[in-house]
Amino acid sequence: MVDKKTEGLAGIQAGETAICTVSAEGHELRYRGYSIQELAGGASFEEVAYLLIHGELPTSSVLEDYRNRLKSFRELPSALKLVLENIPKTAHPMDVLRTGCSMLGTLEPEGKTRDHFAIADRLLSAFPSMLAYWFRFWKEGKRIALNSGDASLAGHFLHSLQGGSVEEARRQMLEVSLVLYAEHEFNASTFAARVTASTLTDFYSAITSAIGTLRGSLHGGANEEAMALISRFRSPDEAEKEIKVMLSKKEKIMGFGHRVYKECDPRSDIIKKWARELSKKAGDTVIYPVAERIEAVMWREKRLFPNVDFYSAPAYHFCDIRTDLFTPLFVMARITGWAAHVIEQRANNKLIRPAATYIGPSARAFVPLQKRG
Amino acid sequence: MVDKKTEGLAGIQAGETAICTVSAEGHELRYRGYSIQELAGGASFEEVAYLLIHGELPTSSVLEDYRNRLKSFRELPSALKLVLENIPKTAHPMDVLRTGCSMLGTLEPEGKTRDHFAIADRLLSAFPSMLAYWFRFWKEGKRIALNSGDASLAGHFLHSLQGGSVEEARRQMLEVSLVLYAEHEFNASTFAARVTASTLTDFYSAITSAIGTLRGSLHGGANEEAMALISRFRSPDEAEKEIKVMLSKKEKIMGFGHRVYKECDPRSDIIKKWARELSKKAGDTVIYPVAERIEAVMWREKRLFPNVDFYSAPAYHFCDIRTDLFTPLFVMARITGWAAHVIEQRANNKLIRPAATYIGPSARAFVPLQKRG
Repeated sequence: MVDKKTEGLAGIQAGETAICTVSAEGHELRYRGYSIQELAGGASFEEVAYLLIHGELPTSSVLEDYRNRLKSFRELPSALKLVLENIPKTAHPMDVLRTGCSMLGTLEPEGKTRDHFAIADRLLSAFPSMLAYWFRFWKEGKRIALNSGDASLAGHFLHSLQGGSVEEARRQMLEVSLVLYAEHEFNASTFAARVTASTLTDFYSAITSAIGTLRGSLHGGANEEAMALISRFRSPDEAEKEIKVMLSKKEKIMGFGHRVYKECDPRSDIIKKWARELSKKAGDTVIYPVAERIEAVMWREKRLFPNVDFYSAPAYHFCDIRTDLFTPLFVMARITGWAAHVIEQRANNKLIRPAATYIGPSARAFVPLQKRG
Repeated sequence: MVDKKTEGLAGIQAGETAICTVSAEGHELRYRGYSIQELAGGASFEEVAYLLIHGELPTSSVLEDYRNRLKSFRELPSALKLVLENIPKTAHPMDVLRTGCSMLGTLEPEGKTRDHFAIADRLLSAFPSMLAYWFRFWKEGKRIALNSGDASLAGHFLHSLQGGSVEEARRQMLEVSLVLYAEHEFNASTFAARVTASTLTDFYSAITSAIGTLRGSLHGGANEEAMALISRFRSPDEAEKEIKVMLSKKEKIMGFGHRVYKECDPRSDIIKKWARELSKKAGDTVIYPVAERIEAVMWREKRLFPNVDFYSAPAYHFCDIRTDLFTPLFVMARITGWAAHVIEQRANNKLIRPAATYIGPSARAFVPLQKRG
């Protein structure tokens, strides 16, 4: 039998990594040695992307080249646009990115003239374009242009998704959010990317696996579920009452606690500040106060802290981003961490192939169809 | 540091399964308790598919219903055909199935009216159609009909891929081959499907991950590499000489040995017989003798036995199946095992999220861009 303590491979060392440490002392997160607080406070998302993929922070001139390269990758091939137009309006937006990533792999395959660094950069720029293109094609029947001149990926995405000019506070929040979501060690989607990469398949396959894995409600989908929860209540008092009822029924409250962090999620306070600021700007008197009350109740009753997903939900909401686009936003950030992990896996590869404990029927004799009745 | 012995999770129990036992006593394979020899000798692929997914062999009437249901799922939606037509001729055929699977997930999503059993059946029937449709669209510029009346999936595939009537010996070989490739416990692609499923994502995401994982040369790609190897030699003597040279240079010979089997791969002798029979029918005097000689040399020099991939390569070759379609054939078989594993994972789910050993830089202070030079 599988040991209950290590079910789901909890605590089992599945490999080595130089990319990220999670939960040193139960509450710390560092990318390549830098603390998440310092990165979120002082670095752009593009700097963090470069750091994760290349191992060091870029100098000013390297960063400028990098930004220009990323900008040049925003346009999409026409065959991919056609695929996006044929994905129904009702589709799950994560399925749009999963399919778009896989399709791009057939149009711009990995090979001698296109290595994994080039594909990482391409996908980093292409995901915001794919999502915005599909979204506005169905929302407005419009084939939007994708060569926005925005300096940052966060600006490019908001601009492409919503048209018009982008409010700077929103862009900054998104920038910070992308930094927070960029990387998180051997979480399920990253681990899936590494399992896939370990057979020496192509880069797109590994990222496609990661997207499909992130899609689940126990992983990337948590911020969407947090928003659904917060939106249910018309006041903090109602939230308090209902959350207590849910707890008494042992219902799961999304956005709290973490498999790895034991004391707090260091990302939560950072995004919480942005949620508060954007709430104020929006003149909100319900959503943010409800969220704060849920946090207080969960701590008082269960000693559970909010994870990064909980306050990301209202922060995105105040940017007028539709709830079902929250997890795709996570993809736009995490592609950087996934890319770094696939590159790392390849550098010292070993096929990932665990064992299983058999609990099925004992050996039995085959009965031919005619005798089976 | 990660223990060398358990690198790649080798020997680590990653979960429980009632589907399959691999390598009991170093050489046995059983699906749901039935030996692979008995299944390959006495059961159709459709019976094995039903066994894997539903846990028991079907009775005659259940099997008839099942065959009819599978037949009804062979046609593809027009939006999917359009996508297939936009995947370039030069694409890797595994990318066609990966993209096709993901796209189908946007057109026929999992939900209240479509459960995982329905999607498993749909994909089982749709993969041969997708591959044949794409292949012949590009090869002949033809949009083939997909409602072939063939009773078996093996027949439907050969018929759709090659047109005309299907030689019965070829169909039987393919039927047996599909049985042999249907399931293999926690191999990398199945494990990837389970990791993906463990976040409670949709069924298509899990299968899309599995396809991308199987694509790698250390996994499904091995039969293609075996064919490339066998085709290099014009005679058994040349093969013997060159294989010895390769061994002396410590080059990897594809199609030999196995992470789990220690004595032999029980599937190899079964497919070897078919490779020999089809070789005779084709009047071949080179390929099969070369393959046998490579087997003899590998055993004599390295005590390595052929795995299922080695003789599958010539067997497929004698059916006039292009080498780059070998791994997609593996998908058509393994979708049954993947489906069974995803359903099993969901029945007793626990998020699969291992730990990692950190080997990167120690904590370091952030330097703002302006001071980085």
